[in-house]
Amino acid sequence: MSKWWETTDDPTDHLNFHKTLKADNSFKTKVLPTFRPDKAFQLSKGDAFRVYLQKLSDISGVRIHNLDSLLEALDQRINYFDSLGCVASDHGLRYLPQKGKFTVMEVNAVLISVINGDDLRAIEVEDSFTFYVLSEISKKYHAKNWVQQFHLGPLRDTNKGKLAILGADTGYDSIGDYQQAERMADFFNYLDTTDQLAKTIIYNVNPADNAVFGTMIGNFQGEGVRGKIQFGSGWWYQDQLDGMIEQINALSNYGLISCFIGMLTDSRSFLSYSRHEYFRRLLANIFAEDMLKGYLPYDVDMIGKVIADICYHNASAYFKK
Amino acid sequence: MSKWWETTDDPTDHLNFHKTLKADNSFKTKVLPTFRPDKAFQLSKGDAFRVYLQKLSDISGVRIHNLDSLLEALDQRINYFDSLGCVASDHGLRYLPQKGKFTVMEVNAVLISVINGDDLRAIEVEDSFTFYVLSEISKKYHAKNWVQQFHLGPLRDTNKGKLAILGADTGYDSIGDYQQAERMADFFNYLDTTDQLAKTIIYNVNPADNAVFGTMIGNFQGEGVRGKIQFGSGWWYQDQLDGMIEQINALSNYGLISCFIGMLTDSRSFLSYSRHEYFRRLLANIFAEDMLKGYLPYDVDMIGKVIADICYHNASAYFKK
Amino acid sequence: MSKWWETTDDPTDHLNFHKTLKADNSFKTKVLPTFRPDKAFQLSKGDAFRVYLQKLSDISGVRIHNLDSLLEALDQRINYFDSLGCVASDHGLRYLPQKGKFTVMEVNAVLISVINGDDLRAIEVEDSFTFYVLSEISKKYHAKNWVQQFHLGPLRDTNKGKLAILGADTGYDSIGDYQQAERMADFFNYLDTTDQLAKTIIYNVNPADNAVFGTMIGNFQGEGVRGKIQFGSGWWYQDQLDGMIEQINALSNYGLISCFIGMLTDSRSFLSYSRHEYFRRLLANIFAEDMLKGYLPYDVDMIGKVIADICYHNASAYFKK
Repeated sequence: MSKWWETTDDPTDHLNFHKTLKADNSFKTKVLPTFRPDKAFQLSKGDAFRVYLQKLSDISGVRIHNLDSLLEALDQRINYFDSLGCVASDHGLRYLPQKGKFTVMEVNAVLISVINGDDLRAIEVEDSFTFYVLSEISKKYHAKNWVQQFHLGPLRDTNKGKLAILGADTGYDSIGDYQQAERMADFFNYLDTTDQLAKTIIYNVNPADNAVFGTMIGNFQGEGVRGKIQFGSGWWYQDQLDGMIEQINALSNYGLISCFIGMLTDSRSFLSYSRHEYFRRLLANIFAEDMLKGYLPYDVDMIGKVIADICYHNASAYFKK
Repeated sequence: MSKWWETTDDPTDHLNFHKTLKADNSFKTKVLPTFRPDKAFQLSKGDAFRVYLQKLSDISGVRIHNLDSLLEALDQRINYFDSLGCVASDHGLRYLPQKGKFTVMEVNAVLISVINGDDLRAIEVEDSFTFYVLSEISKKYHAKNWVQQFHLGPLRDTNKGKLAILGADTGYDSIGDYQQAERMADFFNYLDTTDQLAKTIIYNVNPADNAVFGTMIGNFQGEGVRGKIQFGSGWWYQDQLDGMIEQINALSNYGLISCFIGMLTDSRSFLSYSRHEYFRRLLANIFAEDMLKGYLPYDVDMIGKVIADICYHNASAYFKK
Repeated sequence: MSKWWETTDDPTDHLNFHKTLKADNSFKTKVLPTFRPDKAFQLSKGDAFRVYLQKLSDISGVRIHNLDSLLEALDQRINYFDSLGCVASDHGLRYLPQKGKFTVMEVNAVLISVINGDDLRAIEVEDSFTFYVLSEISKKYHAKNWVQQFHLGPLRDTNKGKLAILGADTGYDSIGDYQQAERMADFFNYLDTTDQLAKTIIYNVNPADNAVFGTMIGNFQGEGVRGKIQFGSGWWYQDQLDGMIEQINALSNYGLISCFIGMLTDSRSFLSYSRHEYFRRLLANIFAEDMLKGYLPYDVDMIGKVIADICYHNASAYFKK
């Protein structure tokens, strides 16, 4: 039985149900919010972005008129999420952002223009803007001892006709083929240099990136927590038998499978219980096949402990604050 | 026994043998031409391109002196191919083209210069030129209810010494590593926006692109035909046991294997009969192994119908006009 | 038992131990140096590069003050290595270099500036600089009938904090995702055009590049030696069961496995004997499984000869001068 359960929430969510649950001592399972501020990065979305900033202003009580106040509003929401037990953030991006050629002052100026209705330079500076905002809130995650998650690689909203009729996230996303390695190394290095790299999980949607992700985690491990940087379990299109097996084997070939925190699920997946069950079975199967082949020692206690760690104990220790 | 057979033909082919076969009622197998205008896109090939345009002018009766007349000549040939039963076109490209920064007027001006012997800007605008020509004739394919095929990803003519001695397509081509996803989504979206995206088959030569191709087809499915956008069977370097199995598994993991039209062959492959036999056997083997493992129900009738559809019925319905 | 053994050495190495061993007739195993001039390409490393050039000047007796004298110094060392039996060079690069937009005169001017302590344009021209130096010494390798090896694809020194404390090559390198195909084809074509392409082995660190590397070798084969261009065995992160099996299967699917020279090892690997043993066992296992499945004829003599060739005879013939 799960000891805790995490939901995925926008910074503008009021989290009222989390407050009610927290106050209710009879419900023993912890249900915790997860901070997912994807909409705060969509500088080039025009009115949708402006409406979002207004909503974020309203709920945070911080009037957002430039980069500093945007960061202040997000900081206020991080504190609020933290007060309700949040231990993780989540980000969906094509790839991690680069500072690029724009200074923080230039990005701030474009943000102010966008807030005032001028979207002319929004696309041009969006990557830099994402870098400045994300790197700043990543430092907050580190200060709070949260886990930050990066889900990388999709190509979204491919079908503009359907986007206009049905809206975003209605099934017209697919797998992208972006270069991930240098951007990821640079971003993590930027945070690690000042010792502000939080516990981090990276997820790839393109299985051709398994080797890049499986080896990247080795560059930024740190003291204090086993497996500080994690290669996350098969995600989205990879959340099926072959995808999960390939992720596990890549992690095992390039890193330390024994430190793996296993399958995570956000609460939006109605079939989460069976998904965890499916993961545990295929994981046990991979180890069992290697034991039968003689690739691993036929030691059920030793291997069993590794499997139990991956299925429960590693995650339990990892998300502790 | 095959009910029909397709050949691969250049727009400048006279198709006389097809005319003769059509007139011969005693030969029951349909032999149909396929429209493959690769040479019409080779703006940067200098004299070879000019010679080709002259040939296309001669056979079409349309004097090609600019973009409009080139499109008119190709249109004339599409009509001619169609009159002889053609149901498919075929294109070989590194990747799908992008409009880029050049307007149709600029591209037209460069084409006119090239026709007049000045190749100075040919390489620079070739991708845009390909976009304008390909997107226009794609609309014709859609109007004719043809199937358009895109074979993507090779790196051609690598060995310039052998190219000079032996000519093109003599065995010095290999697998490229181009970014395919955004270009493909943009091209299909451009055609889909005006509801002019024809039935389409995409083939990748690099197996690292399987996930991109296997998920891209889900973005642009449409009414009227099952599996309108197809992820084509293992092609060229992938036309071997591992390559075909990986394509089938990728399609099965990311899409609907039951809608797959299976192995196609152009008539240039002398061993086509055994190739189809090989495909059918390895396909049946994949399903059988999953049935034995318990991953699929042990229901020979149900699974057998899926296999029969992939081997024959799906293609038969798909290529109907 | 090995007939010869190769070490990996910098051009500035004195090779005194090699000289001693060569003089000692009682030691029957050949121990040969391998030429690995990676540091000669690090134009943007500032003082470290200048210190290196000084060291190279000292040992070669050639004062390095521009591109020509750098090439002369390297040439002198190639001759010296050759005199001690060297048959191979080795290079570690992200990808093969491109000439780019800089002329040899411009690159020479930047090199002179760097030698004089001005690093301003070092990063900008580094790729061109690498092209000019590498292509020139590649021609020397060809003249000497050496084998040139290219280890391609890693992302190095990702963790700048650890780099400052521990130095380079201390475990903070991972797998990159660079586009390899066009650069490699262009570089090999450049050398092949004047018939100066040496025997070449290419190694990829990213398994997603297996198809590119496995097919690239087919473009530049030549007379005089079987399998002149080789797709090298699983390297670094791929030097494990899955990585080696995938490389072997890619080579077998795209090329001629019978010409494969198998596993090589530089002397830095303390476990080299068991590594060769491991390779031989997994290789035999791959063939045996295909024989049992009926994919290969059950002909132990014929298949055994192929395996013996891959494990010993092919390499023995390949490295002969």
